Amino acid sequence: MSEDSGQLTLPDGWESRGAQRTMFRRFSFDAYAQTRDFVDALSALTQAEGVHPQNINFARTYVNVTLDPDAAGEPNRALAARINALLRPAGA
Amino acid sequence: MSEDSGQLTLPDGWESRGAQRTMFRRFSFDAYAQTRDFVDALSALTQAEGVHPQNINFARTYVNVTLDPDAAGEPNRALAARINALLRPAGA
Repeated sequence: MSEDSGQLTLPDGWESRGAQRTMFRRFSFDAYAQTRDFVDALSALTQAEGVHPQNINFARTYVNVTLDPDAAGEPNRALAARINALLRPAGA
Repeated sequence: MSEDSGQLTLPDGWESRGAQRTMFRRFSFDAYAQTRDFVDALSALTQAEGVHPQNINFARTYVNVTLDPDAAGEPNRALAARINALLRPAGA
């Protein structure tokens, strides 16, 4: 992350949107099998963590994830970072 | 289904949208655990069938599913019916 516009840095690929401090990232994949694997991993993560994203929207080659702010009303960087970590097994 | 406006009947809860003959249904649930179970079952179905919905959009208590037309360009009633059948285990 080379930019710093005065906000705390967000995890790679995420942006903070609007006054409500939701976070958004689009994850792109080459094929539906990878997209599906990511959605499955995301589902397992939410079960393990006892959380749920505000919204997940996916089609053949992308998954758009929107996160609610955390309990303190701040962008949920911790959950975003854990979601990013789901990419590693597929990319390894 | 008590209405028949000249179209073939669609599986329960589904509507056909637009000239492209996509199909749409909103599935509603009481809690995220049920929503997540349905998304997981839908993911497994798509893997088993080698298909993918055009779009899936879900949040805590709903899953919106949009299906492409089938190979003949008709609303994909068969896939819609198989998705409906996923509701039975959770409701049983």
